[in-house]
Amino acid sequence: MAKTQPARGMRDFLPTDVRRREYVIGVVREVYERYGFEPLETPAVENIETLLGKYGEEGNQLIFKILKRGEHEKTGEADLALRYDLTVPLARVVAEYGDKLPKFFKRYQIQPVWRADRPARGRFREFYQCDVDICGARSMIVEAELCAAVSDVLVKLGFNDFTIRLNHRQVLSGVLAQAGVTHDKQADALVALDKLDKIGAEGVAKELEARGIAGEAAFKLLRFFEGVAGIERAANLVDVGAPGTERAAFNADMLGRLVEFIGPHDAGALGCEELRQILQYAEASGVGARIKLDPSLARGLSYYTGAIMEINVPDLAGSLGGGGRYDNLVGMFSGRDIPACGFSLGLERIIVVMTEREMFPAELTSAPADVMVTVWDEEATADALALARELRAAGLRVDVYPQTDKLGKQFKYASALGVPFVVVAGPDERARGEVALKDMRSGEQRTMSRATIVATLQESLNRKI
Amino acid sequence: MAKTQPARGMRDFLPTDVRRREYVIGVVREVYERYGFEPLETPAVENIETLLGKYGEEGNQLIFKILKRGEHEKTGEADLALRYDLTVPLARVVAEYGDKLPKFFKRYQIQPVWRADRPARGRFREFYQCDVDICGARSMIVEAELCAAVSDVLVKLGFNDFTIRLNHRQVLSGVLAQAGVTHDKQADALVALDKLDKIGAEGVAKELEARGIAGEAAFKLLRFFEGVAGIERAANLVDVGAPGTERAAFNADMLGRLVEFIGPHDAGALGCEELRQILQYAEASGVGARIKLDPSLARGLSYYTGAIMEINVPDLAGSLGGGGRYDNLVGMFSGRDIPACGFSLGLERIIVVMTEREMFPAELTSAPADVMVTVWDEEATADALALARELRAAGLRVDVYPQTDKLGKQFKYASALGVPFVVVAGPDERARGEVALKDMRSGEQRTMSRATIVATLQESLNRKI
Repeated sequence: MAKTQPARGMRDFLPTDVRRREYVIGVVREVYERYGFEPLETPAVENIETLLGKYGEEGNQLIFKILKRGEHEKTGEADLALRYDLTVPLARVVAEYGDKLPKFFKRYQIQPVWRADRPARGRFREFYQCDVDICGARSMIVEAELCAAVSDVLVKLGFNDFTIRLNHRQVLSGVLAQAGVTHDKQADALVALDKLDKIGAEGVAKELEARGIAGEAAFKLLRFFEGVAGIERAANLVDVGAPGTERAAFNADMLGRLVEFIGPHDAGALGCEELRQILQYAEASGVGARIKLDPSLARGLSYYTGAIMEINVPDLAGSLGGGGRYDNLVGMFSGRDIPACGFSLGLERIIVVMTEREMFPAELTSAPADVMVTVWDEEATADALALARELRAAGLRVDVYPQTDKLGKQFKYASALGVPFVVVAGPDERARGEVALKDMRSGEQRTMSRATIVATLQESLNRKI
Repeated sequence: MAKTQPARGMRDFLPTDVRRREYVIGVVREVYERYGFEPLETPAVENIETLLGKYGEEGNQLIFKILKRGEHEKTGEADLALRYDLTVPLARVVAEYGDKLPKFFKRYQIQPVWRADRPARGRFREFYQCDVDICGARSMIVEAELCAAVSDVLVKLGFNDFTIRLNHRQVLSGVLAQAGVTHDKQADALVALDKLDKIGAEGVAKELEARGIAGEAAFKLLRFFEGVAGIERAANLVDVGAPGTERAAFNADMLGRLVEFIGPHDAGALGCEELRQILQYAEASGVGARIKLDPSLARGLSYYTGAIMEINVPDLAGSLGGGGRYDNLVGMFSGRDIPACGFSLGLERIIVVMTEREMFPAELTSAPADVMVTVWDEEATADALALARELRAAGLRVDVYPQTDKLGKQFKYASALGVPFVVVAGPDERARGEVALKDMRSGEQRTMSRATIVATLQESLNRKI
């Protein structure tokens, strides 16, 4: 006998799960389309060279690789791999179909990706990303539109306590460079600083030293990020939705500190100006109060070149989504750089929080049918099927009990499914040209002419809704 | 520079393609739900043992296998594999969650599967199946309901010339046994008989001989199947939708021949009785005239145990879908047999035919937005975004030109996308509290108060629809 569990870190979705997933996906799709985005789909399987070298060393390790087939299978080599995110396939598509696509390609894509990560709460090996990207434009209008779109999605789903943390890769580099961290140590510095919340300033100092960053550079860095953490605590905006003006003042303060610290560092200063524009445009888009400048935000993926964003809610350790600008990724495929920026929402993370907070509408758990037609015996089967056909033609969702059985069992089955009405046509009813209709909620049973059952049911169902 | 094509036999779906796919999927889902089916989803990746040994030797060769990860990668071994169909995962799910599922589990599942087949017209290495199955019941009500459901899907999509070919695995066995073909030669006999259309009786006789089936068995078989082919040609029902009564007479004639030939072969006779019931029930379900008994239909998959079905249209060599009863598959996982029967529609096949016949509704190619807001200059950007926000809040689909640019270029872009309206707010208009609205189809441009633009656009769009 074979194992019957799904593979490690993967899940089966029973009907209630699927309905919840489709509800969220429906909202995402509707909002993205309201922003003028168009749908794209790419294959689950990519040539392995398409993926390797795009996600950093750690990412490479997490890619699921597919064995060559036929006589090549025994070489143990892989030529294909499972999609790891939706951004690299988008870059490939833009490079491949460039001239068939609009000048600015605004696409959304809602598909699964696979990562051989260690499974944990809200972290699976197969999960859906809901991506939205604009290719072809360098203006910060893009960043503002994306923040507004994902914010609209979350508000429409019922979230009101999320924060979009915002930072900029060039600003990060500027801060590190101005502190005196050499280029080759910047990644190490970010890993250490990322732990400030958890292990405090002293812990981070030790970690920096262990990674070869000591003396003045470590001191300057820590002083800057401690200052940042201090005003965050003072403003108490970390995890609460604050009024717009308060949030705007906080962001202006934070931006001022960055500008001052970075000083004349060219790329860093340009990054600060882009952050200023994003904040201004986001304000006009109505999403300003959702955004919080966070100079410590780094994001793992290696392809980001400009603004980076991440969405958090208080009751989830990870993020609901994230994104950023990646102006060089398309060029890795086409040799011609095309600016691009995108945002990705994590379907599973959203569903975990919505489930715990009971945010799903009650209709999602409704019965699979409006009415069930019973099957009295072999002889009455054709009549039962003919009746089901009529009811379906009238637009009703109709279940037919799929075998002859004791009537009691058939009622019990309908009741277990929550089907509100059951139709019975026994030999007596059929002889008189009648059927019986049972209302499963009231228990009331009425006999009526076979000719009137469709209209009666339609009316009863309308009344119940 | 990396390759930018998708992997061999796989495809990217640009927005128009996705819209077509979603249109078909939407119809499939709606009809299946009208029959009381509920949605299920399973992972793309299964443990490799779940799939091996379920699809016959040829199937095993076509499974995409996934390399073990980390230190085990260099062994060249596979522990996971890509889903090959939706039936085996369903059987696994029924075995795993049996007591959480309804007594009769009626599920639909619309997901991709992967097969390392040689790509051809309408045959891809990643393709979607739209499956619908009923688990738990042995009655032929199930077969009739499934035929009615897939028929409703095709009719709703605009097909009216499809045929559901029907046969039965036990009837096939009965015919072969009564002709004197030994059990171990039955598969060979079916492969040869499958070519009757193409290579004629003499060709098949040679092929049978080459496979070790000669003498009386070959003679009896050929005579029976030539007779069958003869009445098919005479009735001229092969590829045309025939009136119900004519089709019923044809099926009755065919069933009579089968009953006569099979004689006392127990399982075969039981199979004939099941075919009779399916025809009777399908008639009541309104799908009788779509069904054609075809004693030569065999279906490739090894797990079928009873009725088998396949849907064809005249202008496609392959089938639009197929299915059958598989009463032993769940038992391969749980040790306890649960009867089951299902039907699978091939999304890509349906789309190939619908595209060639131009069956898609025109709305599917509509513009990605109702209106585009232009961006005059840096200074006017915030105002443009605020206007877009208002228009979206009113339910419109709104594109914002994602950078400052010459106005001519912005109009050209909107025109290329087919966006029907463009809003302009230059310095003069903004100074007067006005905006200009251009109707891209008539070329007409009107200036109006900023306060009235939302209502004006809503009204104009309603008029256009």
